[in-house]
Amino acid sequence: MIVVLAGGVGAARFLQGVVQVVPQEELTVIANTGDDREFYGLHVSPDVDIVMYTLAGLVNESQGWGIRGDTYNTMQQLTSYGHEDWFQLGDRDLATHIHRTQLLRQGKTLSEATDDLRRRLGLKLRILPMSDQSVQTHVQTPAGLLHFEEYFVKRRCSDPVQDVTFVGAEAARPAPGVLDAIKEAEAILIAPSNPIVSIGSVLSVPGIHDTLHEASGMVVAVSPIVGGAPIKGPADKLMSGLHMEVSAVGVARYYRDFLDVMVIDEQDAHLLEAIEDLGIPALATNTIMRDAAAKKALAQTVLEAAGLDRFKHIPG
Amino acid sequence: MIVVLAGGVGAARFLQGVVQVVPQEELTVIANTGDDREFYGLHVSPDVDIVMYTLAGLVNESQGWGIRGDTYNTMQQLTSYGHEDWFQLGDRDLATHIHRTQLLRQGKTLSEATDDLRRRLGLKLRILPMSDQSVQTHVQTPAGLLHFEEYFVKRRCSDPVQDVTFVGAEAARPAPGVLDAIKEAEAILIAPSNPIVSIGSVLSVPGIHDTLHEASGMVVAVSPIVGGAPIKGPADKLMSGLHMEVSAVGVARYYRDFLDVMVIDEQDAHLLEAIEDLGIPALATNTIMRDAAAKKALAQTVLEAAGLDRFKHIPG
Repeated sequence: MIVVLAGGVGAARFLQGVVQVVPQEELTVIANTGDDREFYGLHVSPDVDIVMYTLAGLVNESQGWGIRGDTYNTMQQLTSYGHEDWFQLGDRDLATHIHRTQLLRQGKTLSEATDDLRRRLGLKLRILPMSDQSVQTHVQTPAGLLHFEEYFVKRRCSDPVQDVTFVGAEAARPAPGVLDAIKEAEAILIAPSNPIVSIGSVLSVPGIHDTLHEASGMVVAVSPIVGGAPIKGPADKLMSGLHMEVSAVGVARYYRDFLDVMVIDEQDAHLLEAIEDLGIPALATNTIMRDAAAKKALAQTVLEAAGLDRFKHIPG
Repeated sequence: MIVVLAGGVGAARFLQGVVQVVPQEELTVIANTGDDREFYGLHVSPDVDIVMYTLAGLVNESQGWGIRGDTYNTMQQLTSYGHEDWFQLGDRDLATHIHRTQLLRQGKTLSEATDDLRRRLGLKLRILPMSDQSVQTHVQTPAGLLHFEEYFVKRRCSDPVQDVTFVGAEAARPAPGVLDAIKEAEAILIAPSNPIVSIGSVLSVPGIHDTLHEASGMVVAVSPIVGGAPIKGPADKLMSGLHMEVSAVGVARYYRDFLDVMVIDEQDAHLLEAIEDLGIPALATNTIMRDAAAKKALAQTVLEAAGLDRFKHIPG
C-alpha cells in the first residue's frame, strides 16, 4: 500500500500520475482538511474535493478546482440575500457540500462522509481526512488572524504573513486509519503541495509527524517550489513569512525529520548538493506536470526513488 | 390590518390581487407550513416560498412554484450521488432553503427565518408561519401514512385518501403574533386554498380555530372549488376521501364554525341557497384569477364582503 499526503491542485495532478501506475485499491490519500470551512452552513472541504473531482474526471482543469461547466445560480441568489460571494461554489459543486453536510448532521464523521462521497464518485482509492476534528489553518497578518481561505481567496494573499497557526490541532486526533496507513505503507509520498498550509497542517495533527519519523516505508517528497517559486499558490509568501528559504532546499529542511528522499525539478539541479548536505538524498527530474505522460513519468520516478522498482515498467 | 390565511398557488394568486388594493404594510399572511419538509438536510417551506416568490415577482408563473428560469444542476449532481429527485428544487430556489436552514441551525425560529427571507426579497407584508413547531400533514392511504409531499408530488395523488392527520399539531403552538393578528384584524380572509391540507393544517394548531371563532373582524372565505373541482391541486380527492361534499357548500360547511361570508364562483351561483341554509351569507362573483385585473376585482369584492368599503374605490 502506498500513502500520499495531499493538499489541493498540485497533489491532485500528482495523483493523476500515481493512479496511472499504482492500482487505486493500493492507494491511501491523507488529505489536508485545514482549509475546511462552513459557507452558508455547508461544510466545504476544498482540498478533498479538488482531489476527488480531479480523479473522477470532473474537475475544471483550467482553474484546478470546481466542476467543469458548472453554473453559479445558487450563489447568485445567495448573494441577492446578502451573502458574501468571494468563495465561488458552483451549483453542481454545492451538491457535494449539501451531501457532506447532511451526513455530518446525521452524526457521520468527516472520514465517513468523505468515504461516502469518494465511493459515489466512483473512486477506488482510499481518501482519509487528516482528522475528524476541526483543525483550521489561520494566517497571522498585520490585519489580524485570518482563516486561510480568507487570506488566500478573499484577500488574495495581499497581507504580509507573520505566522501560521493550526487552530484546534492540539486537541485533534488523526482520523481512523491515518497512523496505521503510514505505519504499514510501503512508501509515503508527499505531493508537491504547499509545505505549510497543505502538508504542515497534516503534520500539525498530533501523532502524524512522529509516525512518519518512525515509518518503515520510505518517505519521498516532491518539491512544489521550482526555480524559486511555487507552480501555483502562495507557498512563497507563506515560506518567506516564516523565514524559510523559498526553494526546494527550504522544503527539504522543513521535512528533514522524516524525509528519506527529496525529488526536485531538473531546473533546480544545482540545489541537489545543498539538500544532500542536510543528510537527505535527492534527485532531480522533470516535475512540471504538463500532460498525462509527464504526470506518469514523475510518479514512476518518485516510486522508484522510494525503492519500489515494481512500478517501473507497468504498461499503462 | 387585514389577515389572510394562505396555502400555496391559489393563495399566492389571490394575494396578488389583495396587494393591489391593500398596502402591504397593512397585511399579515398566516401561512401553511404543514407541507414543510427537509430535503437533503435543507428546510423547505413550499407554501411560504410560493407566496414570497409570487409577490416578489420571481415565481415561475406557468407552474406556480419555483423561480422563473431556474436551472437544476445541483439536483442533477445530488441525483448522481443517489438522492431521490421527485421534489424538484432549482438552483436559485436552493439558495432560499440553504439560507433558511442556516438561520434555523443558528437557533433562529421558523418565524424569524421566514421574516428574514421576506425582507430580503423586498416584501413589506408580514408573513407568519402558522407555527414555529413542526406540524406535518400526512395522508392515510392503503399504502400507509404518507407525508403530504410524498402523496402529492412523489406519488401524484394516486393513492386513495382514507384520512388526513397533522402530525405534531397537538404539541404545536401558534407562531408569535398569529393569535394577536387574528384578534386585531379588521378582516380575516381565507384564500382559495386547499381547505384540508392548506387551511385545515393551519386550523389544526391549537388556538387558531377558537380565535377565528371569537375574532371581531369578519371572516370571509373564497371557495377553491369551482364547478365541483379545484382550480389546481388535489382538494377534490382529499375532500371526498374525508366524505366531504366536493363543492363550495362542502368548503363552507368545513369553515362554518367561524365563517361570516362565503365567496363562491359565479358558475356556482346555484349553490348560494345551500350555503345560506347553513346560516352563512354567501355571494357569487368571478373567482377565476386569469389576470391582474381579475385578481384585483376579486380582492375588492372579498374586502367589501368583509365590510371594508374603504378599499372599494382605491385607484390601482
